[in-house]
Order: sequence, then C-alpha cells, then structure tokens
Amino acid sequence: MSGHPQTLEDLLSPSVTDLASWSELHAHHTRVADLSVRDLVAAEPERSKQCALMAAGIHADWSRQRIDQQGMELLRKVALERDIPTHIADMFDGVKINNTEQRAVLHTVLRADPDSSVIVDGRDVVPDVQEVLTRMRDFTRSVVTGSYVGVTGKKFTDVVNIGIGGSDLGPVMVTEALKGFQVGLRPHFISNVDPTDAFEVLRELNPETTLVLIASKTFTTAETMANATQVLAWLKNGLPTASNHAGHLAALSTAIDKAAQMGIPEERVFGFWDWVGGRYSVSSAIGLSIMLAVGEENFDEFLAGMHAMDEHFRASPIESNLPVTMALLGIWNRNFLDIPTLAVLPYEQYLHRVPAYLQQLTMESNGKRVDADGQEVPVQTAAVLWGEPGTNGQHSFHQMIHQGTQPIAADVIAFAQSAHDFAGQHATLLANALAQIQVMAFGRTEAELVAAGVPAALVAHKTMPGNRPCTLLLAQQLTPATLGALIALYEHITFVQGVIWGINSFDQWGVEYGKEVATALTPYVSGDVDLPPTMEPLTRASLQVLRNLRAQS
Amino acid sequence: MSGHPQTLEDLLSPSVTDLASWSELHAHHTRVADLSVRDLVAAEPERSKQCALMAAGIHADWSRQRIDQQGMELLRKVALERDIPTHIADMFDGVKINNTEQRAVLHTVLRADPDSSVIVDGRDVVPDVQEVLTRMRDFTRSVVTGSYVGVTGKKFTDVVNIGIGGSDLGPVMVTEALKGFQVGLRPHFISNVDPTDAFEVLRELNPETTLVLIASKTFTTAETMANATQVLAWLKNGLPTASNHAGHLAALSTAIDKAAQMGIPEERVFGFWDWVGGRYSVSSAIGLSIMLAVGEENFDEFLAGMHAMDEHFRASPIESNLPVTMALLGIWNRNFLDIPTLAVLPYEQYLHRVPAYLQQLTMESNGKRVDADGQEVPVQTAAVLWGEPGTNGQHSFHQMIHQGTQPIAADVIAFAQSAHDFAGQHATLLANALAQIQVMAFGRTEAELVAAGVPAALVAHKTMPGNRPCTLLLAQQLTPATLGALIALYEHITFVQGVIWGINSFDQWGVEYGKEVATALTPYVSGDVDLPPTMEPLTRASLQVLRNLRAQS
Repeated sequence: MSGHPQTLEDLLSPSVTDLASWSELHAHHTRVADLSVRDLVAAEPERSKQCALMAAGIHADWSRQRIDQQGMELLRKVALERDIPTHIADMFDGVKINNTEQRAVLHTVLRADPDSSVIVDGRDVVPDVQEVLTRMRDFTRSVVTGSYVGVTGKKFTDVVNIGIGGSDLGPVMVTEALKGFQVGLRPHFISNVDPTDAFEVLRELNPETTLVLIASKTFTTAETMANATQVLAWLKNGLPTASNHAGHLAALSTAIDKAAQMGIPEERVFGFWDWVGGRYSVSSAIGLSIMLAVGEENFDEFLAGMHAMDEHFRASPIESNLPVTMALLGIWNRNFLDIPTLAVLPYEQYLHRVPAYLQQLTMESNGKRVDADGQEVPVQTAAVLWGEPGTNGQHSFHQMIHQGTQPIAADVIAFAQSAHDFAGQHATLLANALAQIQVMAFGRTEAELVAAGVPAALVAHKTMPGNRPCTLLLAQQLTPATLGALIALYEHITFVQGVIWGINSFDQWGVEYGKEVATALTPYVSGDVDLPPTMEPLTRASLQVLRNLRAQS
Repeated sequence: MSGHPQTLEDLLSPSVTDLASWSELHAHHTRVADLSVRDLVAAEPERSKQCALMAAGIHADWSRQRIDQQGMELLRKVALERDIPTHIADMFDGVKINNTEQRAVLHTVLRADPDSSVIVDGRDVVPDVQEVLTRMRDFTRSVVTGSYVGVTGKKFTDVVNIGIGGSDLGPVMVTEALKGFQVGLRPHFISNVDPTDAFEVLRELNPETTLVLIASKTFTTAETMANATQVLAWLKNGLPTASNHAGHLAALSTAIDKAAQMGIPEERVFGFWDWVGGRYSVSSAIGLSIMLAVGEENFDEFLAGMHAMDEHFRASPIESNLPVTMALLGIWNRNFLDIPTLAVLPYEQYLHRVPAYLQQLTMESNGKRVDADGQEVPVQTAAVLWGEPGTNGQHSFHQMIHQGTQPIAADVIAFAQSAHDFAGQHATLLANALAQIQVMAFGRTEAELVAAGVPAALVAHKTMPGNRPCTLLLAQQLTPATLGALIALYEHITFVQGVIWGINSFDQWGVEYGKEVATALTPYVSGDVDLPPTMEPLTRASLQVLRNLRAQS
C-alpha cells in the first residue's frame, strides 16, 4: 500500500501471540485464573443454556469448562482476528491451504452434495468422487449379494483391509463402532509390520471366502506392501494352483499401474486424490472395508452425518459454530489453563477405538512446533489425546483425573438410548457418565466431607479439588449418521486449532526421517553384517545387545 | 531423643522437596538443563555401558534419557535419603504400608517360593497362596482335559471373565500378550456396565460350552454384578431347564457366602486377600482366566518371571536395581524436565493392551495430590501414561513425539526374536524401533538438513529438536516369563515412585464418591421422575437434554 517493497516479515502471518485479542485474553485469564466451576455456576444462572449447542444431531454442553462468558467472547474474538470464516471457506473451496505440499484439502467433498461443484486445478472434482463412490457401491453389492465370488465359486464372508495409519485407524474405529449395523462381510485389519499381526488375523480365515483390500495411496507404504506380500502368499497357498488369486484382491490406491502389476484390474482399484490426507480419508475409498461390512446404505448414512456437520461448520457464525467453539475451548485449556492432555471418554463400548483414531487426527495434524511459514509457534500446540471407554476408565485412571496434581481435560461422549439394553444397565451407564463429570467439575470439599462424617484422618485423602474441565457430547443413539457427525466434528476442531496456532494441519514432515533411518538400519538388524565404527554409538550398542540376546536362543 | 514430646510435624514424613538430596538435584538440574542427548553422548564415551542393566531377562538401556551420570548419582541419593531399601523390605515383609486402609501389600507373595514364609497378623500367608494356586491348577486341568464338563456333558471351549478394573485389565492384557501360548480355552471378557459389552461377547458363544468366571473380591462391584445377572440369564436361557446352570460358574472372590447364594460351591470359589490390591492382582486367583487359556505350565512360567523380577528388586543395591533406576528416571522426567506424559510403545502387536494395563497400575496408584500423611505433595506426581504398538504409532502420533512443542517421554519395548517371522518383517520392525529412538534422542538439525540438500522452505518443517527422553527395554523373546518380569518391573517402578513422592500407592479414595453420585442419579436417568429443583443445575440440565433426546425416538 505504501509503495515500499514487502519484507519477508510482511508476508508472514502473525504469531497467535501477536494478535491484539490474544493479549486481551491473556489479561482476562489473569483476572479469572482463580475462578472455579462452582464460582462460574453461581455467577451465571443461565450457564447451561449459554454453554450448549446442537449440531448435526450432536448436543454439546461445555458448562463444566473453566471459562466464563466474557472469556468465551474473547476467544471468539481471537477466532475472528485469525479470520476463521475465511479459512473455512478456503478449505471448502479447494484453496491450496496445505501450503508446504501445495495441495487443496477437500475431505469435505468426499461427502458433498453430488450436485455441487468444487474446482481444483480447473477440474470439478465432485463427479470424480461420485464415480468412485458409485463403483464402491456396485462392488459392495456384487460381493454382498454373491454375484462377485471367490475363485472357487464361494461367496465372500470376510474382508481383510491391509493398511496403516489413516488407511487403518478410520476403518477399524468405524467398523467397531458400527458392529451393530453389520449386514455384510466380517471386517479384519492388518496394519503392523510386526508379523504377529498378520499371523493372528489370517489363522482364523479361509482364503476361499476372504476378500483382501490393499490400502495405500502410492502402493509404496513399507508396512502395507510387506503385509500384502505375506497375504498374497497365504492366498496362493490356500487357493487352487491354477486359479487367479488376484480375483480376491482390490486396491484402495491411486497407483493403477502398481496395482496392475499385482494382477488387480482397474475396475477393482478405488482411487482417491492428493487433496485427501491419510488421517482425513475415512470417507474416501479407504472406507471400502466399512461399506463391505455395514452395507452401502449405512455407509451413505455415515457420509450424510459427516456432511451435516460439514454444512453446520461452513454455514454457522462463530458464536453458534460447534467445531469452532470446541476448538476454542481446547485452546483455552492448552494455552491458558496449561493442561497438557485431553482424555476422550466414550460411555459406549462400541466406541473403544475412537481415542486411537483421534490420536492420529489431532496429534499428527497439530503436533508441530513451527507454523505454516516455518516460524516457531510461541505457545504449546496439540494436547496428548488418550482415553478408554467409561465405565472401564473409572476403575483405572479416573482416580488421577479426580485427584492428580496435573488437571486433565475431558470430552465425555454418551448416547440417550442403547441398541441393546438389559435390565436398565444403560441407565446405570449414563448415570455414571453424569456423576463423573459432576465430580470432575465440582470435586468434593473438606467441609462437605466433614459434614458427611468422614473420619478426620481420611478427609485429605477424600478431598477432590474439582475444576477438571469437561465437555459433554450427547446424541440420541449411536447410528452411522451420529458417528459421521462426531468424526467430522473432530476433523473441523483440529483444523480450527491449526489455523489459530498458524499451523498447516495437513502435512507431516516429522515422520519421514525415521523411515529413512529404519531402512538404513535394517541390514544390521537382520544380518550379521559388521557394525561400522562410525555408526551412532548408542544405536550400535543396542544392535550389539540385540545380537547377544538372539545368540542366547 | 531430646526428651521433648513429639509434635505432629515430627511424626509426618518430610515432603520430597525437604530432602537435602532433592535440593542438590535441583541445583544440578539448573546447571545441566541445557545439555542435549548429543552433548551427553559426546561427554560420556562409556555412556551405553553406564546406562544399562539386565534383570530377570530384561535389558534396559536409558542412554537416550536426558540425564548425565552425576544426575543419576544424585537421584540415587534421593532414593537413599527416602530410604527405599527399607521400604522395599517392609513391603516384602508384610508391613502394613497401605496406611490409610491398614493393610499389608503382598502381591509378591502370590509368586513367592512355596517354601518361604511371610507372616501377616500372626499367620503365614504363603501356604494360603499355595492352596489357592493348587486348586486353580487342579480346576484348570479338569476343565482343559474334559474331566469337568458343562451340564449337557460337553467339554468347555470358552471362558468368559466378568470383572472390571484390576479384575479385567490384567487378564485381558496377558491373554492377548500370550495368544501364541494358548493351549486351553478361548478367553473372553465382559467389563463395561454398557450392555453393548456383554451383548457382543455372548452373541458369539454357546452356553453349553462356556465357563463363566465372576471376578469381584466382595461380589458387590456394581458393573460386575450387573453383568453377572445378564450372563446368568443367558446361561439359563441356553441350557436345559432342569439343569443346574451354576455348574458353568466359578467365582474369583473372597465372598464365599455371596457366591454360594448364586449356587457356586466353595470348591469353585478361588479367593485372594486384602493385601492384594485390584491393580496388583493379575498373579492372584484373578489370573484364572489366564491359566485356563494358556495352561498351568505357562501360568507358572509367568509367575516365575514375576518372581525373578521381585527377587532382583528385593536384593539389588540401588545402583544396580532396575525398578529403582527406572522409577528415578521417571521422577527426573516428571519433576525436573517437567514432562507430563509417558508413552509406552511396544514394538510387538501382542502387547497392544499393555498401555491400558499400565494406565491403571501407575495412574490409579500415584495419581494423587496428597501424601500418605494427607499433606499436599509439593511437586507433580504420576504422568499420564498412554501408547499404541509400533510401527502403528509411527503412522499416527509419532509426528508429535518428534516435533510437538511439549516433549513426551517414552518407554520402547521390543524382542530380539519373533514367534512368527515372515520374510524378515521382524527385522524391519526392530529397525523401526531403533530408528525411532535414535530420532527421538538426536533429532535432525537445520545444518544436517541443509547438507542433505533439503529445500530452504522446508528446512524448518523438517527440523526435529530431539531430546525426547527414551528407555529401550529388550528381551530375547516374548514368553510368559519375560511378560511376567515386565509387569513386575512396572509394579515396582510404581511403588518406588510412590515412596519418593510420599504417596500411599495402594489406596484409591478418589474413585468412591463418583459411585455414590451415580447411584443417586440412576433413578432420574432411567425413569421420568421429576427432577428436584435443588438438584445441581448443570446435571439437571443434562438430564433434561437426555430426556429430550430420548423423546425424539
């Protein structure tokens, strides 16, 4: 504007701590740092109404978070100063927001209205998505109805998905969550390069009735290709010699040529695109094992649930936008209350792999120390996400949630109705969820314990400080649609937090180097090659210990 | 000594921060805070020898921890000033170190030499342990050989363990870990009060060939008794009307009378004692499902492995004591390097439930804010423990381990040999484990990246700071004995850390109140009883949301 040439600094986005609203928030935090949830409830009689939103069938209640209404206002100001609405629009519109890899980020197109249109590099990608989805549906129908069968003419009963990371965690989590909706094949998963993994999966299966999906965008992922080789050998071994075992294979990949080398014809290669990140790929062709297990209708419902949350996210103003709100609460907990971990506690056994899924989504996306411009982020970024289903966790780590020295934040997920109730056990489950969050929020004071007649020597041991911030997510029932909405919710929370920290949530440069080092070390582990004296000395010593241990057998 | 009456303060143990050695350690930390693992390796040419120990078949290597030899010396001084050797002896000798419940802590007796003797309240408990073990072995043999069969005369093929917390996590973890050693019944587990859990387990099973273990010390654990009722109904339903379905039941409990009310005769009640805490009970009768799955010999091996680690722990001086050493490293990481979480990363798929098991062990034991005397602990206590098997984690959260803002400490577990190898995949697995810890320790500098020709715009994104402290645990192979040694190792680490922080690691007062609140809330969840206006308002609002959601169906 002034006519001066722009300096490098002008081009860089400001750090989050340079925002005026961040300083305001900082000042506010100093004023309210000592307020407890008890204080907040006393001061805000409308709190449970003010701290709740319903979106895509999910009711969120953050009244037990340790923040007042003014704090929320200031957080929303940060979101506005960071221009969240523009960033949301950019993502949905196909702008190349993954700047380090120069890619668009369009997992939302995977579940978009078929009549919509999103242009990437001059091409409308919606028809491409629909074409793959149609082929997935046709293939699923042919397998489930038995019109497409194994080489010995038997109907497929089981599907094995070979993939790792985003090509595994999503399908595992969803097929477990939707076990009650299974109408098709029994799903199995091989991910770890540890030979144990494939061994345990394959020993239960019959090659004649097993369909195998190889899930790797490039067909070069080391673990997946190693496991594919092992499974191919198992198929060849178990099928008639003259038969074409490749009839039992499909590929979830864009590497049509490499799939062809394995004998997989193009019609059984289901592709996706460079604008679908691995940890955002559950609604792409990577979900084929899900569709084969729960059927096309349930898969469509799942996509519809994601789409409903996408539309809410895209269209809602900051103050009524659920993903934005939960992202901001996470920022408050991480950067102002200095809480390093987030426990995700589903009160629903079917959701037992949700924490592992969200670990990849959140920690691989935002577990970064530099922003999109390569500048150090001056505050803490992603929290460590972990968790187990309730009530099991209550008999494990909840002791620490209630009485540990370091507060833990929690998202509690529950459903009003259960698919299978028995003698009111579901009511007991829900009562436990509500009891836990009540105790997390309010604790139990010394005075209350004394009044309850607790012996003096135990009062300190039974005191609970409370103020463990918690969000309660409720839905009517666990269905494909509510599950889809829940996943999309966390996808968008992750994105918003990335934007606030200035992070590119869609690359993962930190995982490359370890692979290189592993490749270089492999010959020294497998063989008895001399260990070069120039080798890094600690690794050298560990290799020597491994060799000594192996010699013991 | 001076003749003055003792004041209350004289009777209380000092806080850890009052120890002279703690102040020395503090001063040392200030001096070395900036040292990197690279610096340490350069300064200590003998580091890999100085930072390693072998105990009970487990080789531990902490050369990649961020501590120098002098720091280790000072940590050992803390252990001595805290009189760890006396505390160890007290535990093994049956002193009532669980002071708030006035109980001895003798899980070590569960695997002790049958000829030894430990007196509790004037009674030698070793013969009691041996008596139960003998009955467990006899029962297991009769079930596995088919001399004890179901009421319709069929051999048992499956065992369902109903229990929660310590009555579940240990058996689940061990039967998964020792899947390759299964020679007896197929094990299944029902823990969660969520009706989903029992539904999914039972629908795969045949009542005629299913043995059911009810695991609850007092036969009053809410979840377990609810699930037992459900499973009893399933048995009655599936067995001939006139038959005595109780023939399919056994109890892991001390409540002989309550078991009898369920029709379980005393000979199928396998007891334990108040000196076995739930999270330390895997080697007690709570392990019966393990014995039924892997057979008595493998179970004996498992106990022998635990005993070997017990003996190492009991007999070794501080400087060569592995549990003490690892406990001290944990103290350093938590209290001096301020690292809030510990990732446990087994490079062995069979160990996938080890992190969940260790969560209860460590977080329920030491997730406490007051010491045994009820005084506030002035430093942070237990870390949040979490993890997933490698290499899977590499495709998920390792991005954050390498490049997050908040360092994460890690224990990496691996085995020199695999039970099932295929085309060298085990070597690849090990190479990955070594590569990951190398990168965690040393990172990758800007200079290295520039030298490797990485484009300038990506250098910051690919830089890894290193200094993620890590201990490598290696054993020859995953066997019942090495697994036992590994578990006992973490039991003792937990105990030593508790002693250093001054915590009673064997009570869990923080879990009681939530149960009371849940019981009080249950009628409001299950029924349409009016919500009293005096009810805590946030809970009241949540109950209203639940009712509205339910009305939608």
